[in-house]
Amino acid sequence: MFDFTATYTDQYQLAMSQVYFKNGKRDTKAVFDYYFRKIPYGSGFAIFAGLEDLLEIITNLRFSKKDIEFLKQYDFEDDFLEYLANFKFSGNIYSVQEGDVVFPTRPVLQVEANLIEAQIIETILLNLLNFQTLIATKASRMRLVSGERVLLDFGLRRAQGPGGYYASRAAMIGGFNGTSNVIAGRDLDIPVSGTMAHSFIQSYDDELTAFREFAKGRPKGCVLLVDTYDTLKSGVPNAIIVAKEMENRGQKLMAIRLDSGDLAYLGKKARKQLDDAGLDYVKIAASNQLDEFVIKSLQEQDAPIDVYGVGTNLVIGKPDAALDGVYKLTFSDGQPRIKISESLIKTTLPHRKQVYRMKDENGECAGVDVIAMGNENNAELSKVFHPSEPYKFLDVSAYQKEALLQPVMENGEMKIKKRTLAEIAEYSKSRLAELPYEYKRFNNPHIYKVSISEKLKAERDRLISEHKM
Amino acid sequence: MFDFTATYTDQYQLAMSQVYFKNGKRDTKAVFDYYFRKIPYGSGFAIFAGLEDLLEIITNLRFSKKDIEFLKQYDFEDDFLEYLANFKFSGNIYSVQEGDVVFPTRPVLQVEANLIEAQIIETILLNLLNFQTLIATKASRMRLVSGERVLLDFGLRRAQGPGGYYASRAAMIGGFNGTSNVIAGRDLDIPVSGTMAHSFIQSYDDELTAFREFAKGRPKGCVLLVDTYDTLKSGVPNAIIVAKEMENRGQKLMAIRLDSGDLAYLGKKARKQLDDAGLDYVKIAASNQLDEFVIKSLQEQDAPIDVYGVGTNLVIGKPDAALDGVYKLTFSDGQPRIKISESLIKTTLPHRKQVYRMKDENGECAGVDVIAMGNENNAELSKVFHPSEPYKFLDVSAYQKEALLQPVMENGEMKIKKRTLAEIAEYSKSRLAELPYEYKRFNNPHIYKVSISEKLKAERDRLISEHKM
Repeated sequence: MFDFTATYTDQYQLAMSQVYFKNGKRDTKAVFDYYFRKIPYGSGFAIFAGLEDLLEIITNLRFSKKDIEFLKQYDFEDDFLEYLANFKFSGNIYSVQEGDVVFPTRPVLQVEANLIEAQIIETILLNLLNFQTLIATKASRMRLVSGERVLLDFGLRRAQGPGGYYASRAAMIGGFNGTSNVIAGRDLDIPVSGTMAHSFIQSYDDELTAFREFAKGRPKGCVLLVDTYDTLKSGVPNAIIVAKEMENRGQKLMAIRLDSGDLAYLGKKARKQLDDAGLDYVKIAASNQLDEFVIKSLQEQDAPIDVYGVGTNLVIGKPDAALDGVYKLTFSDGQPRIKISESLIKTTLPHRKQVYRMKDENGECAGVDVIAMGNENNAELSKVFHPSEPYKFLDVSAYQKEALLQPVMENGEMKIKKRTLAEIAEYSKSRLAELPYEYKRFNNPHIYKVSISEKLKAERDRLISEHKM
Repeated sequence: MFDFTATYTDQYQLAMSQVYFKNGKRDTKAVFDYYFRKIPYGSGFAIFAGLEDLLEIITNLRFSKKDIEFLKQYDFEDDFLEYLANFKFSGNIYSVQEGDVVFPTRPVLQVEANLIEAQIIETILLNLLNFQTLIATKASRMRLVSGERVLLDFGLRRAQGPGGYYASRAAMIGGFNGTSNVIAGRDLDIPVSGTMAHSFIQSYDDELTAFREFAKGRPKGCVLLVDTYDTLKSGVPNAIIVAKEMENRGQKLMAIRLDSGDLAYLGKKARKQLDDAGLDYVKIAASNQLDEFVIKSLQEQDAPIDVYGVGTNLVIGKPDAALDGVYKLTFSDGQPRIKISESLIKTTLPHRKQVYRMKDENGECAGVDVIAMGNENNAELSKVFHPSEPYKFLDVSAYQKEALLQPVMENGEMKIKKRTLAEIAEYSKSRLAELPYEYKRFNNPHIYKVSISEKLKAERDRLISEHKM
């Protein structure tokens, strides 16, 4: 059965750690960057999610007795296993706030710890941040195209196992309003909602009886699924009968749900049937393989759908289904470290760093984040360079500079106050609101600039030339 | 924090259940089919996985006090909540064996329970079986193209949160040999293996020192990553130096790992360098965005790669990333139930059923599974029909008939002996071996026939015509 212990890691982290442990690098300090290279879905931005989960899990990450017993089979030495038995992450983490809009190739989070601790947490860090950032970004695409309509996550049954639990969380950060996932609702204070399945209607001999029984048994928040037999000839008329009966009992039918067929066409016809019956307060929910493209199309057709229930395509983050986030060593043993690649864009940036978001004199987003050395004075930042086009530069001296990487863990202790999911979502919404429209455009969004400071560029270039010698 | 309780479900299961509970359907017996409609990846078969996990979880599925407290906010009535507090699944489950090859539109598993219990377990059943079946199928594609080469799962960092744990399990059923995922290794008796990361080499001032230290610290199963600086000019030559030093200590370098560049070209060159140095026993492992297409291409080029490390594309089951498994009511309250769809192929099959696999007089797979009524005498099966082309039929009277749905849970108790993962994988391999080559072809495989018995067809057609009236 599944649990989070420090063995939620790749074997090579432990193999490397034993070598560090045996060879005098037990207390060697290192810095690692977490960042991703490509924004999924052709989006102009990603939404960073998963941070609070990660910090809580790291705070409690230990090797259990069972873990240590297991590792004995794999040639780990006794003194190292004893070290693991007392393992607790005691490093520092600097991070962008959860919910912020983030961009490729710059550090979203930085770990400063001894090499062993930094390696052991790598896998779980990537696992949680990559996935939640993927899903929050997917959800934000749906939020952007659906205006103020209600978005509900219905995906647990098609999710990748318990990944669905975290998908429900990340969807809320990206702008969803609720979930069908009861356990996520229980733990994460997400509003849960549910309607009825076709099986409910089938289990009765006729649809009208099924609707009646449901309305009696669950009058509050009652939603009737109208497509089991024939949406417009049977489902909606029967729902209208039941809605009228509910009115006679002083109750109100909340909504009907369409789950097949042409949702735009059926939505319009159903709306008219409901309105003609004086039931303009009854909302229309729709589901069935929705994604941001289908929702966008429904919106463009003015389909009178009030609630979108999104399943598979949300919770597995289709089509990308993974964020390519990486975790790279940038400093260890008192030295900056670099991984040189055939292309400059894939070459890592050495040193502990800070990332600044630029705002113009009116406080408006300038469309530029700047990666600088951690010890640079931000007031001195002026000429900044494209990370892989050495002759492209900008002058940012006139901009206000907001430092994005803030301490979120110090000596293994969480330094941020836990926020509710609603607060994180609200923060995300406010950060997204600061981003000009061009970067949020659905197709071919404007590319947000990520530049490097002159000093960082000089350091990178120095290390490249040293390695080339 | 994540756990498996009975709230690992969709809210509507509970809403429907309360209505059943209040309206005299508390003890109504029902039968549900689990099946999928489309084999992912263009494969000719899928590998069924996740059953033992599901049965274990269902056996222990309860609503905790925390669950019940939570549900009080959602207008559930006290007597129903009391019922939930005492909930335990007490039904029967009939299933294909885990690891078997399975095909679309026929029941892979059947639940026979009271309506409430059957609804409450629906979500977790779909969640676990859909995902593991997806990944086992993906893994089996890689196994088929890679012959006897070693396949290792390296995917945890890019997995969909704790979905990665179940991906590691399913990959083994599909034919993988091991994983980097330590916690999956600990719980599921999967061999774990690991090499080293670029960060390890970067944390030293030079590659040779890094290799030397690693070989000293982890001489057993030592694998050196050779692409940090220059694979053929630096990585492999340094690995050779260290391999020779290990020989002097009576040790053997196990392998080198390539993680970038043209793996076929580098593999051949590296093999030659190693062989020329008398190190023909040193194996070559390769990783970097592998999938079944890349592996197939490497095999076709005779790339001398002994071990494939597969990450993202395996554990998220790209590009499909979800199996479209569904759970449909087929019988309740003493009546067969049907859900009619615009197409016959999407119309459900009523009644409790049995599925038979046909073998010819030589015991060879005949390429046909037949869905029959649960109470049909299999000796009488002769004329069987295409499920959606009413004029296509076969005569199966000469075939041997293997009943595939066997009791795996009775009255809520597991009826099968727990097998090791290696045993399930071995069974899967043997079942796949029975399948003729044409169904396993990589591209455009032959379509395995799934037919329905004459009696079942008559029952379906009768119910359709009754509903149409």
